[in-house]
Amino acid sequence: MQLSRDRVVAVYLVETPHSLEKAAEVLAGEQSTGTFTAVPGETADLKKRFGARAEGIRPLGTAAAPSLPGAAIPAPGGGYNRGEIRISFPLHNFGPSIPNLLAAIAGNLYELKELSGLRLVDLELPAAFTSAYRGPKFGIEGTRELCGVRGRPIIGTIVKPSVGLSLEELGRLVFELAMSGLDFIKDDELNADPPYAPFERKVDTVMDAIHRAADKTGKKVMYAFNITGDLDQMRRNHDRAIAAGGNCVMVSVNSVGYAALTELNRYSEAPIHGHRNQWGMLTRSPMLGMDFRVYQQLCRLAGADHLHVNGLSSKFYESDESVVRSIQSCLMPLGDTLLPMPVLSSGQWAGTAVKTYAQTGTLDVMHLAGGGILAHPDGPAAGVESMKLGWEAALSGEPLAVYAERHPALRRAIEKFGRPVETVSEKSTFES
Amino acid sequence: MQLSRDRVVAVYLVETPHSLEKAAEVLAGEQSTGTFTAVPGETADLKKRFGARAEGIRPLGTAAAPSLPGAAIPAPGGGYNRGEIRISFPLHNFGPSIPNLLAAIAGNLYELKELSGLRLVDLELPAAFTSAYRGPKFGIEGTRELCGVRGRPIIGTIVKPSVGLSLEELGRLVFELAMSGLDFIKDDELNADPPYAPFERKVDTVMDAIHRAADKTGKKVMYAFNITGDLDQMRRNHDRAIAAGGNCVMVSVNSVGYAALTELNRYSEAPIHGHRNQWGMLTRSPMLGMDFRVYQQLCRLAGADHLHVNGLSSKFYESDESVVRSIQSCLMPLGDTLLPMPVLSSGQWAGTAVKTYAQTGTLDVMHLAGGGILAHPDGPAAGVESMKLGWEAALSGEPLAVYAERHPALRRAIEKFGRPVETVSEKSTFES
Repeated sequence: MQLSRDRVVAVYLVETPHSLEKAAEVLAGEQSTGTFTAVPGETADLKKRFGARAEGIRPLGTAAAPSLPGAAIPAPGGGYNRGEIRISFPLHNFGPSIPNLLAAIAGNLYELKELSGLRLVDLELPAAFTSAYRGPKFGIEGTRELCGVRGRPIIGTIVKPSVGLSLEELGRLVFELAMSGLDFIKDDELNADPPYAPFERKVDTVMDAIHRAADKTGKKVMYAFNITGDLDQMRRNHDRAIAAGGNCVMVSVNSVGYAALTELNRYSEAPIHGHRNQWGMLTRSPMLGMDFRVYQQLCRLAGADHLHVNGLSSKFYESDESVVRSIQSCLMPLGDTLLPMPVLSSGQWAGTAVKTYAQTGTLDVMHLAGGGILAHPDGPAAGVESMKLGWEAALSGEPLAVYAERHPALRRAIEKFGRPVETVSEKSTFES
Repeated sequence: MQLSRDRVVAVYLVETPHSLEKAAEVLAGEQSTGTFTAVPGETADLKKRFGARAEGIRPLGTAAAPSLPGAAIPAPGGGYNRGEIRISFPLHNFGPSIPNLLAAIAGNLYELKELSGLRLVDLELPAAFTSAYRGPKFGIEGTRELCGVRGRPIIGTIVKPSVGLSLEELGRLVFELAMSGLDFIKDDELNADPPYAPFERKVDTVMDAIHRAADKTGKKVMYAFNITGDLDQMRRNHDRAIAAGGNCVMVSVNSVGYAALTELNRYSEAPIHGHRNQWGMLTRSPMLGMDFRVYQQLCRLAGADHLHVNGLSSKFYESDESVVRSIQSCLMPLGDTLLPMPVLSSGQWAGTAVKTYAQTGTLDVMHLAGGGILAHPDGPAAGVESMKLGWEAALSGEPLAVYAERHPALRRAIEKFGRPVETVSEKSTFES
């Protein structure tokens, strides 16, 4: 629900030694007209026109101990009050600018003594904000078009080992993968433009392998070249990838920042594959940082065509419920922007398709498996085949094990990577 | 201690349900050659040349409960083991690149189930890394030169109210401040290029006031224009500030990212005032994120000439000990880079000078007071005078109250803002 065409709403989960009303007042004051002591010029009229406003407070109970250190002490008998607080800001305070929005909705708030916990859980941007950013140039539809894939997820993998492959080894691996029926291959986030395999030569090596495979198969695999770096390096490497016939570039969003992603989006000629490494730092403490629901809006406006969301039953700490919410948030409208494609990875294999489809009901994802494809007992082609079969099984509604009886590539994947996920607990043998 | 000319060392505070040795192995493996399951090409030779290595483990006790959610469960009878782990990475894995360094030393580590806490507490970069970045172009010395201030801190203030002043009001305020004997004025982080006071007109207004004051006083105040924004906007606003005679630009580092700061540093012609708002999100949870010791290295290499560190006895959660460590870390060498000037702000007034000098022993800081100057009972000029007197008292070793007997501006500041800080507890009446 958007309150107004000219206000931004930020929703916070807060924990405070004071009342929630007082916390709301502090939040609003700190981030708009307030200072610690009245100064000349801070008139009632100025406060009315420029003040942030508490729009709603929902109590969520009281904690005995503070979640974060350094907060003030509650009054005797009191605890740390938790609640959700909606604050609205006049858009004209900062204008349609992601960097300046962040100073207002996040800024110094995380350091306030009046709060023992603060998490930005939602963000509602008016059209006057979202329309100032181009957003994804390709999104789900543009990516499907480039990959020639309809009616199922885009199946992909990550070049492994992450670090250290010679160009010769890389070329052989990419050729083998491209021959395997894959739709998509990406560089690892650890591998961009390293001294031992400079980007320029990597592009030539990879695109030569992809073109050779395409000559045989008729299908040109999408390859996300990791161009993460300083700006001139990103520009140069983007241009090299495009010149060599590349059709996707990858960026570690948190490594370069929103402004650099926005800049890349201005001149990019291929989908931008947004990697979210370091995201855990911003989100794993439950009463600090922000929810993916907010983060994906910023990444999307700044230009991410694809956005990593972890995978279900992954090797990471995140719950499946949280991953599902992340996928759903990418698929929600945001102004007139194209929808970005959620990217599932980490501990993925054919079996995780069933669970993913059951819980999200969408096929609009990229489903990436590293070992789940590369380490398939019958080789990468069988690995890819098993992933496609996993989604077919999911769509068919038939149990994976039953479906696998007629499909050896799937059966062999189950033998190696785990029992079918719908019949086992969260932690499959695959992950051990 | 630098292990090697061609390795980067990252030091982590970790908490794990496993042994610290196992955690070290996971950290090293995840961020270099490892994947979840053995893949072809991951040879012993590759691991030797490209593997990250645990260089040291220091146990720090065991916690009964995990600091962060989603970690694996300890073996029966076990707890969550804490310790400091040093990991070294071959520089050739990523090269001298801040964005790609981050993928390696931070990356997906914060999301591992094998860890219930992870904090990056130190970073040791070899010369081959630091020399690839220009770092501050002005630093402490260049800033002193531009301000014409020696032998004491640079005294400054922040334009308040943060938001909503008309250009006419801003011009009047800046003229009054510039006439008051201040060295430095900055935009608030909430105020960059807002629709109600566009940057181009703000620059003209501010510089007109500064030049008019300089004609009378002979001193040109340094003004940090907040150019935070998307890249073209930052470039444009930097150029406007310089063209109008401006001599400092300000950027919210976390709003724009390291790559954008690096880019700005390439063409900036004035010191870059680095604001760290949103930093709390990265550091307030004790077992997550990173220490300022690491952050300041990244900001410094990327080009921050000034860097915010909070102030002692501030309105924020941070302890004075932590602020002191931050100041000290800015003043430590980092390759051949110039030293950045630590910027003290929040709840600052004449009285906080004494404590700051006693605990850091340095005069190489910018000491910013908002209300502590603007709300001085005898006006801003007396506020500035009181700040200078506070540092004189600190240097003299005389108690503030005694020193104030001979100096009315200081005495009046004490009356309004608090009893002398050396005689009261952490929380002065000033902050209430």
